[in-house]
Amino acid sequence: MSLQPTIYVGPLIHHKSLTELEILPTASIYVDAHGKIAHISPTPTPPPAGFSSARTIHAPGPSTFFFPGFIDTHTHAPQFPNAGLFGATTLLSWLETYTFPTESRFSSLPFAKQVYSRVVKRLLSHGTTTAAYYATVHVPATNLLAEICHAAGQRAFVGRVCMDRDGFVPGFYRDESAAQGVVDSRASIEFCRALDPEGDLVQAIVTPRFAPACSEEALRGLGELVRETGVRVQTHVSENRDEVRLVGKLFPEDRDYVGVYDRFGLLGERTVLAHAIWLSEEEKRLVKERKAKLSHCPCSNTCLTSGAMKVKDLLAEGIDVGLGTDASGGYSASMLEEVRQAILVSRHVAMVDGEKAKLSFEEALWLATKGGAKVLGLEDKVGSFEVGMDWDAQMISLGQVDEDGTIGVTENLVDVYGEEKWIDRVAKWVYAGDDRNTSAVWVKGRLVHKRTDVSF
Amino acid sequence: MSLQPTIYVGPLIHHKSLTELEILPTASIYVDAHGKIAHISPTPTPPPAGFSSARTIHAPGPSTFFFPGFIDTHTHAPQFPNAGLFGATTLLSWLETYTFPTESRFSSLPFAKQVYSRVVKRLLSHGTTTAAYYATVHVPATNLLAEICHAAGQRAFVGRVCMDRDGFVPGFYRDESAAQGVVDSRASIEFCRALDPEGDLVQAIVTPRFAPACSEEALRGLGELVRETGVRVQTHVSENRDEVRLVGKLFPEDRDYVGVYDRFGLLGERTVLAHAIWLSEEEKRLVKERKAKLSHCPCSNTCLTSGAMKVKDLLAEGIDVGLGTDASGGYSASMLEEVRQAILVSRHVAMVDGEKAKLSFEEALWLATKGGAKVLGLEDKVGSFEVGMDWDAQMISLGQVDEDGTIGVTENLVDVYGEEKWIDRVAKWVYAGDDRNTSAVWVKGRLVHKRTDVSF
Repeated sequence: MSLQPTIYVGPLIHHKSLTELEILPTASIYVDAHGKIAHISPTPTPPPAGFSSARTIHAPGPSTFFFPGFIDTHTHAPQFPNAGLFGATTLLSWLETYTFPTESRFSSLPFAKQVYSRVVKRLLSHGTTTAAYYATVHVPATNLLAEICHAAGQRAFVGRVCMDRDGFVPGFYRDESAAQGVVDSRASIEFCRALDPEGDLVQAIVTPRFAPACSEEALRGLGELVRETGVRVQTHVSENRDEVRLVGKLFPEDRDYVGVYDRFGLLGERTVLAHAIWLSEEEKRLVKERKAKLSHCPCSNTCLTSGAMKVKDLLAEGIDVGLGTDASGGYSASMLEEVRQAILVSRHVAMVDGEKAKLSFEEALWLATKGGAKVLGLEDKVGSFEVGMDWDAQMISLGQVDEDGTIGVTENLVDVYGEEKWIDRVAKWVYAGDDRNTSAVWVKGRLVHKRTDVSF
Repeated sequence: MSLQPTIYVGPLIHHKSLTELEILPTASIYVDAHGKIAHISPTPTPPPAGFSSARTIHAPGPSTFFFPGFIDTHTHAPQFPNAGLFGATTLLSWLETYTFPTESRFSSLPFAKQVYSRVVKRLLSHGTTTAAYYATVHVPATNLLAEICHAAGQRAFVGRVCMDRDGFVPGFYRDESAAQGVVDSRASIEFCRALDPEGDLVQAIVTPRFAPACSEEALRGLGELVRETGVRVQTHVSENRDEVRLVGKLFPEDRDYVGVYDRFGLLGERTVLAHAIWLSEEEKRLVKERKAKLSHCPCSNTCLTSGAMKVKDLLAEGIDVGLGTDASGGYSASMLEEVRQAILVSRHVAMVDGEKAKLSFEEALWLATKGGAKVLGLEDKVGSFEVGMDWDAQMISLGQVDEDGTIGVTENLVDVYGEEKWIDRVAKWVYAGDDRNTSAVWVKGRLVHKRTDVSF
């Protein structure tokens, strides 16, 4: 697909490093017909070759800036109808009470269409340009999710969920057998490859739900499928202490939870492990050695009383970490909310471990952009703005408070009084912002979301 | 002021008890010309006497309900320009870096007008029908805040801040002297009494910032002022461990922090103590004996790494607790956000103390309504819907997801798929909701906020 070359003019904000944002208040970003960044100029300059007839999009208003799209490294598309419904449950009772009954409904394609259409729209409206989705066991509904992402223009990893273990998964919602589960996972990989042969936008991802839900035969079969096809892997690990004990009981021959995945060839640099709260030192060592990636899901971890990940320690040890909304363990589809939750949880860790445990808002934003890109193997494509990378971006517009205390036509919750430095405007967005501030969203240069109250 | 008698028809939801909501799906609420609830009928009935020519307001749409207005028991109106700006500071460094410089700007009335107009609009739009505000040391700006609340129709306690202690408060922002501070506090009380002689809507509240900011002479003078005028008191206590140690050093003759306020006659059933995280058993005993009230500020407590209040323990001990947004220690003006934060913080407490520490969403909503009413002495007037009480209410409208995944004209973040029970709809609102769901707000029967996308 060829696009009109476009020059984006306005403040550009992205990460220089984990701890520091680069702010170019008067940037011009030149995006070519393939949606790639061809050139970035910190000040107005004559357009380079190929951009003489480009259109120009100006950031409107004094508090509008361009920021990298968010990367959600872990969420469950079919669980959105349950957002906010978890009561006092913890992981294992929550699965049984809320999750399995709802996921089983995705045998119905009309229901899947209703929910998945809503979910993809929601995530785009929150500025999530890339998402790693768990679907359900159902191949048709999983393929539909891939189609919806592809049509909407969202970058996505779509995982058919594998779960077959007798005695754990319910009779009404499970793979027919270990062998059938592997066959179905293969079918969903083939579907995605036919849909998007280059895997430029949508890719399948092998998705054993988590070790306790899978037989050894299923895990072995998925490991072989991964070796054969080279697709990525996502699963859960060490979210809840009861779950960790259960894994010890179900897999007595393995040294630990991470060791189970390793034994079946499911732990590698193309693996995303969600939660990873209760890893032992030995497990962390193995994660690092295998270059496996972690998805931190602070909102979910708090809601289900799972625990608090010590994310600063993991980063300091050189382990790759991104953020995940983990609906509906987490109640929000918004990565900006997840950024806030990451900061808040780090402060609860700091109440015990001291100052060094605190995430700054810059660090939390890094997890949601560059960190997530690394976790999903997209670090050369997205997560920040560099020449040669794709234009996966969001236009962020904040409110401006007039003299009489009104904020003009755009309704949102971020009040800028006019004297704030750019770095403080970003902080205000992080803490008070929501989807109303995400005026427009692009993936690979294509406009995939635009609010009706913004014009350019 | 006389109002047109009005019948509100639609689902009514409020608390039966701390743990349980009463849900009347087809209620009619009859509100008289004084804004008082004259009658509530769980089913459609002929109107009682006095309502034959009343207008009727129907809750529009299938997921709209009436809920009591929120009661914010602790917030700082002048700190809203700093919302989200706190970096890695904790209480004492935060005051110095962010708070005192911003509060000092309220010597300017145009600035005060800009900020306070915005703040009162914001709080009403979030469904906050009653707020206990800290203002600044400045009498004219404090009086302006009272006027703005009164004109907007918000129920408010407005406190001129008293702070005079040499060596703690900065030269550029302080009371001229202890005596002048008391004179100024008296002036703000007299202003409010002239503005609203019955104190029906707006009342002054005596507001020593907190013990470390006040000389003994000031505290003594304020204690006498309270004894003489009978107005309520609000202050901070035991928010941060360094602060607690500082009080020990500054008031060596007092047994503890709570004891300081008690010595000066500032601890009674008309006192609201904010934070109260690190109270000793002896302090809790004295708080309970004096029937003093507590304001739990979970968002602020986490942001400033102050600690986590064990709110369930305090409730179990029979101490009265409400919720406070505590801007800008907390970053949000929304009590619904504070409800969420109270739940999340209780889960962090539960990670250590076990299940009993968890607040349910019903309990957290109770803190934001009936709990807050008790804390501010308004339990006979507001916080739930009973005959004889005032109509302080919000109309909550949730989104309805169509078959193709769109949600119709009203844009909001709460997705209702149609099969949810009422209690689950309330849970969805608590976790995903924001000001977009607050379609309309009434105080004492007067419409004080209405979204443009709702009609009735």
